[in-house]
Amino acid sequence: MDAREFREFGKAAVDFVADYLENIRDHDVLPSVEPGYLLDLLPKQMPETPETWSEVLKDINRVIKPGITHWQSPNMHAYYPTSVSYPSIVGEMLASGFGIMGFSWICSPACTELEVVVMDWLAKFLNLPEHFLHENEGPGGGVIQGSASEAVLVAVLAAREQAVRRLRLSQPELSESEIRGKLIAYSSDQSNSCIEKAGVLAAMPIKLLPAGADLVLRGDALKQAIEQDVAAGLIPVICIASLGTTGTCAYDDIESLASICEQNEVWLHVDAAYAGGAFALEECSELRRGLERVDSLNFNLHKFMLVNFDCAAMWLRDANKVIDSFNVDRIYLKHKHEGQTQIPDFRHWQIPLGRRFRALKVWITFRTLGAEGLRAHIRKHITLAKQFEDLVKADERFELIAPRALGLVCFRAKGENEITSQLLQRLMERKKIYMVKAEHCGRLFLRFAVCGMDPKPSDIEFAWTEIQTQLTSVCAEQQVNTRKAGELSELTTHLSGLHVTNATLQR
Amino acid sequence: MDAREFREFGKAAVDFVADYLENIRDHDVLPSVEPGYLLDLLPKQMPETPETWSEVLKDINRVIKPGITHWQSPNMHAYYPTSVSYPSIVGEMLASGFGIMGFSWICSPACTELEVVVMDWLAKFLNLPEHFLHENEGPGGGVIQGSASEAVLVAVLAAREQAVRRLRLSQPELSESEIRGKLIAYSSDQSNSCIEKAGVLAAMPIKLLPAGADLVLRGDALKQAIEQDVAAGLIPVICIASLGTTGTCAYDDIESLASICEQNEVWLHVDAAYAGGAFALEECSELRRGLERVDSLNFNLHKFMLVNFDCAAMWLRDANKVIDSFNVDRIYLKHKHEGQTQIPDFRHWQIPLGRRFRALKVWITFRTLGAEGLRAHIRKHITLAKQFEDLVKADERFELIAPRALGLVCFRAKGENEITSQLLQRLMERKKIYMVKAEHCGRLFLRFAVCGMDPKPSDIEFAWTEIQTQLTSVCAEQQVNTRKAGELSELTTHLSGLHVTNATLQR
Repeated sequence: MDAREFREFGKAAVDFVADYLENIRDHDVLPSVEPGYLLDLLPKQMPETPETWSEVLKDINRVIKPGITHWQSPNMHAYYPTSVSYPSIVGEMLASGFGIMGFSWICSPACTELEVVVMDWLAKFLNLPEHFLHENEGPGGGVIQGSASEAVLVAVLAAREQAVRRLRLSQPELSESEIRGKLIAYSSDQSNSCIEKAGVLAAMPIKLLPAGADLVLRGDALKQAIEQDVAAGLIPVICIASLGTTGTCAYDDIESLASICEQNEVWLHVDAAYAGGAFALEECSELRRGLERVDSLNFNLHKFMLVNFDCAAMWLRDANKVIDSFNVDRIYLKHKHEGQTQIPDFRHWQIPLGRRFRALKVWITFRTLGAEGLRAHIRKHITLAKQFEDLVKADERFELIAPRALGLVCFRAKGENEITSQLLQRLMERKKIYMVKAEHCGRLFLRFAVCGMDPKPSDIEFAWTEIQTQLTSVCAEQQVNTRKAGELSELTTHLSGLHVTNATLQR
Repeated sequence: MDAREFREFGKAAVDFVADYLENIRDHDVLPSVEPGYLLDLLPKQMPETPETWSEVLKDINRVIKPGITHWQSPNMHAYYPTSVSYPSIVGEMLASGFGIMGFSWICSPACTELEVVVMDWLAKFLNLPEHFLHENEGPGGGVIQGSASEAVLVAVLAAREQAVRRLRLSQPELSESEIRGKLIAYSSDQSNSCIEKAGVLAAMPIKLLPAGADLVLRGDALKQAIEQDVAAGLIPVICIASLGTTGTCAYDDIESLASICEQNEVWLHVDAAYAGGAFALEECSELRRGLERVDSLNFNLHKFMLVNFDCAAMWLRDANKVIDSFNVDRIYLKHKHEGQTQIPDFRHWQIPLGRRFRALKVWITFRTLGAEGLRAHIRKHITLAKQFEDLVKADERFELIAPRALGLVCFRAKGENEITSQLLQRLMERKKIYMVKAEHCGRLFLRFAVCGMDPKPSDIEFAWTEIQTQLTSVCAEQQVNTRKAGELSELTTHLSGLHVTNATLQR
């Protein structure tokens, strides 16, 4: 493909994306394909000779689009938002066009320096403590990681290595492997699966401590666990708190956790993958309480900042703790400006060596939306979630399972879990809206997250009508089944040896 | 930004990229900026109100482009290639436009299934063993990781967890932390820094074994190390071999390494990040010797397949070994098709939870270039490197440090390291071409890698002329300095207390 064809293909693709996003409500949010659908549609080998881009684009409509779950649809309410924006899409393309690697300053000065700039912009926008700024004196700063999972893993690994070094000095009678065998970390039983996974990968158990009845992890639970573990000869390393949790967007109590961490030389990391966006809002300033006491923090830009995945911001109070742990340089990576300036070699701040020019899409998005545009976007999500919350409250067949938090409402049909489960199954079959379930203390509930690139009040109405209608239908069927079961039950009392139960029929 | 503005901005950006890549030879490959240049040019805060896209695009020309190291330039010869192609750029944009997450099948069936398809296409194109195919019966298959570093880390971590499980059964008298404290891994002292880093991250030492004089790691070195370590009570876990190494693209001897690994229940991983592309060529079939005996393998698509970074292919002989090690599912990640089919939930094959729709750019690139286009691209790199090799051989002031391997030529100016060092410094100051240095047995050398999106014979001529001219100039200056030093030396014999040496003057 030459430049002329690229100009044609690229512009056709721009129109394809614009058409797709403008008309995204035309599609069911969930696709109607069965597992293996695409394997049957595509050849078993790559073509020997080139095909034209127009054939490929036709096939994207024919075979790819039918297999897409439309995350940018306002009818997406599963997980948390993964929002793109028009400027961010262009930013990703421009970065691909430059096609650079950013593992050191010399690899492309603009890549490293623009990341320093936008991470400071973002830290100020989010009202983060000054020691997280690059422009501030001191060893702190921000970096773009690929995902929240990687940010958490970086914190866990750096904390682990720091603890090993500290213990080797303070307890020289212990061997390194004895020290490593005693390390222990903490999080809440409400925290994201990536935190438990970080523990598995780091070969350091992460105890999932019981959150309170309000699903919040507090210092007293951490204190109790640390005391117990220290008494048993273990070495507490890190606590990963959540703002907010994946299930219900609960906010762990950073102040009380920080006090316990400080007393025990424990690294405090905050996973604010979703709720971090709200740090920007004055009306949510209480969410920032205690942040000046944490060692590291991560926040996903695709959740509230309209920058497409992958782009996970991470700030470190003392980046040297990560660099010391991860630096394994070779001669071919050295360059003459190394270590001379305040310009970081970000490869030491992360797991992989290679890194894309992600700062470009961040910069383009921030400039074309402006701080006021970003704040308006977050507030819109909150307003739409309030709208949904009011609708839930107004229908006595439903109950909230936790207070609405930002753009997330957690609710269920009153009564047995089975009703909520059937409701979700019905909604998934109809594919008009997409939610996922969660569970707390044996109670199944549904998570309604405001998502999509441009959700509107009418989309919330649409979702609620769908949910109400389907609950009515589920309940009606239940009554029929219960009646049938009742009749059948009468019958079985007459027919010995026949074992049919309500429960069987209801499935 | 609305859809109308996006259509304008997107199309302008397509033209920007096309213009940039068509005229890339107009720029010095290295930028002429000093550290901190961009920090001085940009505001300290994001703008409060939106700016227009045309202002931003103007600024990309004004402040970003001057800070770019032009990796797509044919005058880039540092590291290894990171090539983009026009279809791949469009593929990245389309994937951004869909804006989906691919952590499970239901998240977007097309994302998971297209990855299965293209990984099988690629495995066949590279003539990999059948057990690496998804379509084959059995637990093997391919997955797209973010980078070679991540692929290596996944192999290291999975091998570590498998070893721990095996040992807990076979040696129940050992505690888990005793086992972990005895684990040991192996690679060559020529392998990439990401391998040593994987050991640091995994808290499992990776011994860098001495490669032979030809820079190749062989089974006998591994055998000796394993015997020694087992005698010392250690537990060998994994060997990471390279095809080829970062320094000189040396090919470790997979057959002899595999024999030792099989005898010792050691996982054999092959890092073929660069040379893996040559598996596609019949004339390079000897490179594939022993691959049927390895447990896992990684290969970077940006190095030879013209798919822009990030896109690192990884194949596993038994993916269950990774899945068993990494699976930490939550209820909100469950879906009804889970585990029912041969469709993998790729989140268990990797470090992070989130994943982009990377298969799309792979599919678009493979279809529009075709197998013949990809093979022609690899052969072009080899031919151009041969051209360079011949030029080096024809100038008696230079010597090769290792045989040319694929698109890489390692050479130096004959004599003291200082000459080669000064030559490189001169070339870096002039910014016309970009190479990096490496070292073996105290001998400094330069790595000339064929890179860029569309390198031509005239680009090789250009580079060689630059190198020759600058060596001439360096040597001339050396002679002047030596003469001056000689005169000075005579002088110093007359002036007591004055300590000026040749060495000082030459710096």
